[in-house]
Amino acid sequence: MSDIREKALQYHSEPVPGKISIELTKPAETVNDLALAYSPGVAEPVREIAADPNNAYKYTAKGNMVAVISNGTAILGLGNLGPLASKPVMEGKALLFKRFAGLDSIDIEVKHRTTEDFINTVENIADTFGGINLEDIKAPECFEIEKALIERCSVPVFHDDQHGTAIVTAAGMLNALEIQGKKLKDALIVCLGAGAAAIACMELLIKCGAQREHIYMLDRKGVIHTRRDDLNEYKMLFANNTDKRTLQDVIEEADVFVGVSGPDLLAPEDLKLMADKPVVFACSNPDPEIKPEVANAARNDLIMATGRSDYPNQVNNVLCFPFIFRGALDVRATAINDEMKIAAVNAIRAIAKEPVPEEVLSASGESSLEFGKDYIIPKPMDPRLLPRVARAVAEAAVASGVAQIEMPENYML
Amino acid sequence: MSDIREKALQYHSEPVPGKISIELTKPAETVNDLALAYSPGVAEPVREIAADPNNAYKYTAKGNMVAVISNGTAILGLGNLGPLASKPVMEGKALLFKRFAGLDSIDIEVKHRTTEDFINTVENIADTFGGINLEDIKAPECFEIEKALIERCSVPVFHDDQHGTAIVTAAGMLNALEIQGKKLKDALIVCLGAGAAAIACMELLIKCGAQREHIYMLDRKGVIHTRRDDLNEYKMLFANNTDKRTLQDVIEEADVFVGVSGPDLLAPEDLKLMADKPVVFACSNPDPEIKPEVANAARNDLIMATGRSDYPNQVNNVLCFPFIFRGALDVRATAINDEMKIAAVNAIRAIAKEPVPEEVLSASGESSLEFGKDYIIPKPMDPRLLPRVARAVAEAAVASGVAQIEMPENYML
Repeated sequence: MSDIREKALQYHSEPVPGKISIELTKPAETVNDLALAYSPGVAEPVREIAADPNNAYKYTAKGNMVAVISNGTAILGLGNLGPLASKPVMEGKALLFKRFAGLDSIDIEVKHRTTEDFINTVENIADTFGGINLEDIKAPECFEIEKALIERCSVPVFHDDQHGTAIVTAAGMLNALEIQGKKLKDALIVCLGAGAAAIACMELLIKCGAQREHIYMLDRKGVIHTRRDDLNEYKMLFANNTDKRTLQDVIEEADVFVGVSGPDLLAPEDLKLMADKPVVFACSNPDPEIKPEVANAARNDLIMATGRSDYPNQVNNVLCFPFIFRGALDVRATAINDEMKIAAVNAIRAIAKEPVPEEVLSASGESSLEFGKDYIIPKPMDPRLLPRVARAVAEAAVASGVAQIEMPENYML
Repeated sequence: MSDIREKALQYHSEPVPGKISIELTKPAETVNDLALAYSPGVAEPVREIAADPNNAYKYTAKGNMVAVISNGTAILGLGNLGPLASKPVMEGKALLFKRFAGLDSIDIEVKHRTTEDFINTVENIADTFGGINLEDIKAPECFEIEKALIERCSVPVFHDDQHGTAIVTAAGMLNALEIQGKKLKDALIVCLGAGAAAIACMELLIKCGAQREHIYMLDRKGVIHTRRDDLNEYKMLFANNTDKRTLQDVIEEADVFVGVSGPDLLAPEDLKLMADKPVVFACSNPDPEIKPEVANAARNDLIMATGRSDYPNQVNNVLCFPFIFRGALDVRATAINDEMKIAAVNAIRAIAKEPVPEEVLSASGESSLEFGKDYIIPKPMDPRLLPRVARAVAEAAVASGVAQIEMPENYML
């Protein structure tokens, strides 16, 4: 751990501080160059945009630029450390956008007095960018923030901690259930955790076919049920009319466990209570709700996923967010809607079922990968993700009427 | 003109839209790279910044990043066209920061309901950056905005339309007066225009030795005097107790004319009324208050400057703003104060008096340049500006107590 600490601090400070820089995409050497880039030439694109705001996509960097915006209230697993401390994470997200999807991305850390103050600030700067990726904002405020910004902004707004996690979880879950011979609509689901990611995961699973009344959600106080009077409106949607109160009460005969809570909260004895051929997503990071070696020792008929790269089946948002924004921006979608999210789920699922290219094997340090219990979702380094997911998302945007331009010819083919 | 229009639109749209992109300063190829750049390694710099906010300068791009922020209410000479239409100008400014001073710079266009809403928005995002360059914000709101942001932000805030213009004007003016054998403290000054640049120029000239009661300022309604009841608080500071009402009334025997108004507002007959050996800065852009060829035909004892690159003595903000931010950021100044502005004035003045390097001559298309009536300020392409101005500004920041770190050893030497 001290080794990664030292390496991480060195990586972030040398040879220059941070991870991103601004570079010029146009010549700026001669007096003539500058007369085009700035005064007097720059007046021409200004006039064009004043005449038609869509010309901002033609003459500025807007259309390829994603803002990664946070208030630092829920930084990784570290909690509320404030906006400035979140900056390395947000720069890291910008780095991933560029690395995986060629999107220019800049981090913006926002301090604020009230939730409305945060919303208003982001709304006021939103037109600068082609899209807005919200990040590491705590629940339940994140729900109100995202809802308000989607309503008020003309560019797509996406809270990755919610929907990125949900999309990758849904893709892996549907594949895992298929391998186990189960259907999502019949599955009894236990969700340990009731934060932003948990609620978004369950909502997306419902949109993919899960039944709300088959889901038991638990927060720190236990099962979320209709007789509790301490629930916010988002948890309330998952309140079950039930006498069950504990994880042990609900996990019996469950087909699916989704953990977005904390380390070691699922005991081997709990796991043994689940139905035959269960699916266990223990996504607490870095330490899962149950370690794969412990789970596999307890029973051998399960499929397991975690948030870690050193076990099979890593649920990693990077499988989704760079590509969903790539597709959305490339057809100038005004939103990232359910159709686009489900298109991303299906595209990610499909890739996992196809033969794995040699370069993915070597980048992942694997000798072979075949669709099955230890390979239910693609690896982050899979170069098929960009064209396939982006194309599926762009097509869904066009089909669902939120795209402002047509599919580019031969897009990503 | 249609030629530059076509070229400027092509420059801004091809091969990619806009002028800037985000690039990575760290490796991001392998699984190991990403484990340092993002989860889990990124938690380490997060913890360091949470423990000490100054560590943001060590582990993030903040310390080299300048935001160029506008609401688009006073775009170049084009007026109030709104935030989005200002984007090509702001990206252009970002390009100049990078080109001339190696500063990473990103544009942010802000919509807002009220002036306070604008201030609050910028304040909320300010900690993201090492400094804030305000741009193309109309008077008188720009004064209130800059004042409030300087008070509320911990990073330097600088409205370039005011202070960049003022610094370059003061440098050129002091040199021109020296050549004419005059002193600023004795000079009778006429300032045609009473907007942001005009007021900032006069305030800085006063700090450099001009006497407030020797300045006549004129707005669209004529001379600003104490019996007018239509003056905002900023113009009020220049209200003279005088019976003079017109440009002709005040220009008689004036030593200095500064125009930041509009084309052709200074007639040759007006010019002939000025004192011997006058200094005329006709800075309206692109068309000056009087064309140099017209002025030189009217009298041959004047020194003239304009905002244009195709005449001698171009008053161009790019002589200042990249370098004042470079110096300020390199010692982590919390503000850009008067001492730093005057240090910039003096550094720019001094360069003009020294022999001109061959590369500047060729970049400027000149066969020779020598300190005198046709060369009172350096050329924008002069590579001496960066080290000299930045060093002078950084030293002034340290000496005046606004620097948070000491001068880097051998800085810019």
